[in-house]
Amino acid sequence: MSFSYALAFAAGAVQARLDSAMAGLADVPVVHAMRYAAHGGKRLRGFLVLESARLHGLDPVQVVSAAAAVEALHAYSLIHDDLPCMDDDDLRRGLPTVHVKWDQATAVLAGDALQTLAFELLCDPVLGGAEVRLALVASLARASGAEGMVLGQALDIAAEQATVPLTLAEITHLQAGKTGALIRWSAEAGAVLAGADPAAMGRYATALGLAFQIADDILDVTGDAAKAGKRLGKDAAAGKATFVSLLGLDGARARAGALVAEAEAALTPYGAGAETLIEAARFVIAREH
Amino acid sequence: MSFSYALAFAAGAVQARLDSAMAGLADVPVVHAMRYAAHGGKRLRGFLVLESARLHGLDPVQVVSAAAAVEALHAYSLIHDDLPCMDDDDLRRGLPTVHVKWDQATAVLAGDALQTLAFELLCDPVLGGAEVRLALVASLARASGAEGMVLGQALDIAAEQATVPLTLAEITHLQAGKTGALIRWSAEAGAVLAGADPAAMGRYATALGLAFQIADDILDVTGDAAKAGKRLGKDAAAGKATFVSLLGLDGARARAGALVAEAEAALTPYGAGAETLIEAARFVIAREH
Repeated sequence: MSFSYALAFAAGAVQARLDSAMAGLADVPVVHAMRYAAHGGKRLRGFLVLESARLHGLDPVQVVSAAAAVEALHAYSLIHDDLPCMDDDDLRRGLPTVHVKWDQATAVLAGDALQTLAFELLCDPVLGGAEVRLALVASLARASGAEGMVLGQALDIAAEQATVPLTLAEITHLQAGKTGALIRWSAEAGAVLAGADPAAMGRYATALGLAFQIADDILDVTGDAAKAGKRLGKDAAAGKATFVSLLGLDGARARAGALVAEAEAALTPYGAGAETLIEAARFVIAREH
Repeated sequence: MSFSYALAFAAGAVQARLDSAMAGLADVPVVHAMRYAAHGGKRLRGFLVLESARLHGLDPVQVVSAAAAVEALHAYSLIHDDLPCMDDDDLRRGLPTVHVKWDQATAVLAGDALQTLAFELLCDPVLGGAEVRLALVASLARASGAEGMVLGQALDIAAEQATVPLTLAEITHLQAGKTGALIRWSAEAGAVLAGADPAAMGRYATALGLAFQIADDILDVTGDAAKAGKRLGKDAAAGKATFVSLLGLDGARARAGALVAEAEAALTPYGAGAETLIEAARFVIAREH
């Protein structure tokens, strides 16, 4: 299965699951905002869940609720990140952000409810026995809370207010939480659902997540805002340390390339079946948005 | 066991569990804000978890993680409710609210992470088998998300902006989500953990939750801001419909009294063992904060 087909498959399956999960909700602005924010995007995290499940012998259709869960969680984080008190972004995926289209209160609440929905989706019996679903709940909580994503976010905000720019080690630590933890959870989820050792997937995803963030920093400098669907050049304008400011453009590209090679190497035990995940790693640093 | 002793016991046990759950977190403002917001309060929801567990033959000490979970969730909801874009409150439990003491970004993130912590606490193996813990995760998600607490919050915000005041039926529906759902989850949790039918506890808690909110509306008019530790008279000043504005002060008191009688009646099957929960219902309408 080619990466582009697998990504499109994941996007369709995740969207259908999110739609059905939100179908019975009340007809109120906060629910409209939830649907709006949970619509579209690359669905890279959902793809990783489905593809890692396939690699471990599971039918991707059976694990869609886990893919939808991580995408609901990602959507919540974007709504809150975009708030005026956080990154203050008015454009996301080429559309007005939730607090612009509705208001800040609706944005806070829609994000809150999407986080809740993520944990609810992991309770779906189709995913397997209670033990494995609970393991996913626990690991998603660790990946997204004050030890993972939220910690990364908090460190990022602190960095913006600091007078001394971050070092490479500090930015790597920050990004391991901010974007790395959810990417890693996604790649490990298939192994966890199959009762397999997630260590190799974890190594793959750690390299992938960092490559993803370096690529983001490169795009922030070289990218096309129309293709990206969001404002670019913000980090440089804010004088913020990034992988590009610390390594230079060529250095950042070389580091991202090395990380993709690391990600590929981690998948060696899986043989030819891992080709789609390897393509995904190459895509992450070649993408234009 | 007297109610006041049981409430103090619950407060101590919940605080200890929350402290231990947050002990290993990074030394950053968002974590300090989490601890600050998760400190103190009546711990009524935590008490309901512990007491309903005791009533169903469980050792309260074994279910403290579930009590801590609902208090973490409640703390998150208060941080976000207090934000300038929501209720815009600067005082809570007699202290500055999180966005006043830190800033709005820290308040959003601390609330986000406390919600995550709530679900993480429900994964604690001490609570029992995976099936029962997962049942609590699923029911807490339903109680707190866009079908429960967040829906109530969203309806409350919509009501503030509406030109026509809410009817009694509409306010009752709103409050069933905003405060009722978590109170009900708390009272049912003990039965769920014991593998018992939670129906009677559900009836008790539905009446209790509504009585609690009517008492809040009464306190907003008659209360002492120093004892309450927050601003009062806000609803009347905003011309918002409340149980008091719709039923009058005497009518609201009579309705709250009738609900407490309903709550007591629901506990009849439990006999004398339910005395502490009956005392709790009486406390809810007699309290001064």
